[in-house]
Amino acid sequence: MSALKLTLAQLADCCEGRIVGSHELLIDGVANLGNADERKISLFSDKKYSSELATTGAGAVITSPSLADLVPGNKLIVANPLLALARILQAFHAKLSSLPDAEEISDRAFLAPGVKLGEKVRIGANAVVSRNAVLGDQVSIGPGVVIGDAVHIGAFTRIDANVTIYNDCRLGRRCHVSSGAVIGADGFGFAETSGKQRPEWVAVPQVAGVIIGDDVHIGANTTIDRGSLEDTIISDGVIIDNLVQIAHNVTIGRHTAIAGCAGIAGSTRIGENCKIGGRASILGHIEICDDVVVFADSYVTKSITSPGIYSAALPAMPIKQWHKLVARLRRG
Amino acid sequence: MSALKLTLAQLADCCEGRIVGSHELLIDGVANLGNADERKISLFSDKKYSSELATTGAGAVITSPSLADLVPGNKLIVANPLLALARILQAFHAKLSSLPDAEEISDRAFLAPGVKLGEKVRIGANAVVSRNAVLGDQVSIGPGVVIGDAVHIGAFTRIDANVTIYNDCRLGRRCHVSSGAVIGADGFGFAETSGKQRPEWVAVPQVAGVIIGDDVHIGANTTIDRGSLEDTIISDGVIIDNLVQIAHNVTIGRHTAIAGCAGIAGSTRIGENCKIGGRASILGHIEICDDVVVFADSYVTKSITSPGIYSAALPAMPIKQWHKLVARLRRG
Amino acid sequence: MSALKLTLAQLADCCEGRIVGSHELLIDGVANLGNADERKISLFSDKKYSSELATTGAGAVITSPSLADLVPGNKLIVANPLLALARILQAFHAKLSSLPDAEEISDRAFLAPGVKLGEKVRIGANAVVSRNAVLGDQVSIGPGVVIGDAVHIGAFTRIDANVTIYNDCRLGRRCHVSSGAVIGADGFGFAETSGKQRPEWVAVPQVAGVIIGDDVHIGANTTIDRGSLEDTIISDGVIIDNLVQIAHNVTIGRHTAIAGCAGIAGSTRIGENCKIGGRASILGHIEICDDVVVFADSYVTKSITSPGIYSAALPAMPIKQWHKLVARLRRG
Repeated sequence: MSALKLTLAQLADCCEGRIVGSHELLIDGVANLGNADERKISLFSDKKYSSELATTGAGAVITSPSLADLVPGNKLIVANPLLALARILQAFHAKLSSLPDAEEISDRAFLAPGVKLGEKVRIGANAVVSRNAVLGDQVSIGPGVVIGDAVHIGAFTRIDANVTIYNDCRLGRRCHVSSGAVIGADGFGFAETSGKQRPEWVAVPQVAGVIIGDDVHIGANTTIDRGSLEDTIISDGVIIDNLVQIAHNVTIGRHTAIAGCAGIAGSTRIGENCKIGGRASILGHIEICDDVVVFADSYVTKSITSPGIYSAALPAMPIKQWHKLVARLRRG
Repeated sequence: MSALKLTLAQLADCCEGRIVGSHELLIDGVANLGNADERKISLFSDKKYSSELATTGAGAVITSPSLADLVPGNKLIVANPLLALARILQAFHAKLSSLPDAEEISDRAFLAPGVKLGEKVRIGANAVVSRNAVLGDQVSIGPGVVIGDAVHIGAFTRIDANVTIYNDCRLGRRCHVSSGAVIGADGFGFAETSGKQRPEWVAVPQVAGVIIGDDVHIGANTTIDRGSLEDTIISDGVIIDNLVQIAHNVTIGRHTAIAGCAGIAGSTRIGENCKIGGRASILGHIEICDDVVVFADSYVTKSITSPGIYSAALPAMPIKQWHKLVARLRRG
Repeated sequence: MSALKLTLAQLADCCEGRIVGSHELLIDGVANLGNADERKISLFSDKKYSSELATTGAGAVITSPSLADLVPGNKLIVANPLLALARILQAFHAKLSSLPDAEEISDRAFLAPGVKLGEKVRIGANAVVSRNAVLGDQVSIGPGVVIGDAVHIGAFTRIDANVTIYNDCRLGRRCHVSSGAVIGADGFGFAETSGKQRPEWVAVPQVAGVIIGDDVHIGANTTIDRGSLEDTIISDGVIIDNLVQIAHNVTIGRHTAIAGCAGIAGSTRIGENCKIGGRASILGHIEICDDVVVFADSYVTKSITSPGIYSAALPAMPIKQWHKLVARLRRG
């Protein structure tokens, strides 16, 4: 990991923690309880892992007030252990990057006429930035990325390799888009002809775009379609995992989290502070109010007007038991 | 939107509509009822949005005969409002493109020996077109696209940025493939060794290809695998949304629509005019007849021989109610 | 197909088969029973296709001892017909490739300083190989691929077009990664701030990588996230289909197969020799023991400690029948 060494006192400063034990203990990184040595700090935030506390080699342990009594040795007690972990990892890995950062604009990048660049923009090899695109200060564009005409990208936003962003889409500041994501492809809007002849699908032109706020994370191979008449909107602070489908005209409210493989159908509005579980499906043309949790693998078919937890995922069971259950269901 | 202004009479000509109100009214674009001003035309095709009719600022409204009485002011009455919307949008956005069109063959594109090009082909920067590929008239290839050996692409087909098409696949005329789609990767065919040693998976060579008809739409990050012994076939007029998986040897009949995140397992045959809902799963080695609708989030395990609607998706409900239901199910 | 002709005796040698019929029969390829002519060999391994045996034009048929009596004419009897098919196809298509193989290192590829290459490495146009990456002998890198800093790729591994591999990931020997796959993007790890202000998501740095063993297959547009503190691990001989999501810190045991659209949530451990069906979802932080089969479209919520088959997928049924079932379920 990092070559940096920090005292437990310095780590406590990062995360507003309270130390029990040696303030001067030197730590050189973070590791799980099962792997840590005396120079590492570990996280203990779930009783499920209590047995690992007894045998851990960790020099110190981050934990919460309610679990602190279970932890022997040096401890760093914090209100929010996962947040403390994030802060401590940031301290150790001040310049962390999971893809190589271009140090400058690669001479193998292609910038079309009319592109405007802020300060210290980095652009990787074989990236394509089309006419009149605007990249804010310190934007980082990975290799192989394609940025469409008149796209706006706010300062400090990082676009990883092989992402595609279609014309006229806008991303805010400090966003992160993982590789393979596609933003602004045409929504799935088709009109069906009828009459005496064989029916045809006629594409409805998708003339609006995608507006993405500040501090948004978009996972690998996720797709967010452009709007038909009004923009698809992803509000500030939304986090979206991998392989998620967000259809045209969808609006996602501030600080909502969407886990991997979820799908949101067209024109649906999701409120603020929602948590949409992995593989959840949400039907089109409905509204989900603020503060709703949809469990993984559940299917939402109607608008939800009360905050709370919603589910409809049957847990897998041994096949014989399952066959009996299905038979019973069918008999009624 | 567009700088073009068209009279209501001109718009009626586009979509074979009947005007009630001013034929000379000038319209400069399309907007939703909630956002429209007096120079915009809006769509009203669902009673659910009746309340917006009262307050809309729209200069005119597209609607159907059965809803027309609800619409005050200028109206354009058509048999198929969504189709009329498509035609009117096409009129306003004659040259619409959601990714920049290369105006010519980029000098940063790579064309291998033996490539044959029709008239007015456009190829974006950093696209790769491999040996003996054939691109028809007015084909448009986006930046970063990779086209394999001996691929054939019919006239007017548009391949968006960062698409991959493997060797020997064929696409028809007027198709549209959105970014990140992968056509012709190896199907998931493996034989398992048995005997005294630890088992191994041996890849079964996938020696057939993918044949795609005319007027096919393929969504972003969708995958269509090549066939093992016989081609995977997508017939004319099929429309496929984002993040759909189509496995090897599948056949999809004419004019079938497949919504986002659906998955079709290997060797299954789907008929004509079917509608496969979002996130639907269809098991391998079965047949679905023509005119079948599979609802979103449903799982089809057996061949379907009668047209109709099929479903098996439980709607999400508040968690307590759900836990009771599951407990009851388990008791039997 | 191939111009090669092989006798039935030669084919029997490939797959340790026993011939009934003419040893000298010349075969020039493989086809399905329904399409084969007298120069083709076909597979018959499922009684479901018995009717095609009567009318097939195939010169010979590969089958198993238990089905051999049903096959008229020349037959090749083998213990494992699918494995025999793989061996015979390999014989006919010794040099099969579904994407063009670069014959050398393209002068349009970009290799950063410090890259180490084995013998006979091939790299396609517009591929980017970043600092200190190590590519073993006969590695093949497709066009448009982006390989991060210090990535290690073992000998004979083939990376298809437009794949992205982030910094520090390691792949073993003889792997195959299909187009659009993304390996090593940041895991979906965020800490939520609390307190008086509006909550924020703070990204937890994902400082570990992805370790992939030998003989691993990764399908198109599949995503495998890097670990947070410990590596995500894909063991030797694992095969993964298209559009699969593998979250951070997951471990997949040797020889496990994962079908298309499946999703494995974070920190889950899956044993050896498991078969995870298409669209199956597996919750995070659980353990699945060796030799478990999870049926397609099923959702696993708890650790599984006994080998066997597990399911929870309701089969689709006609909509009226389904509505009755749901009503009954809700009444209890």
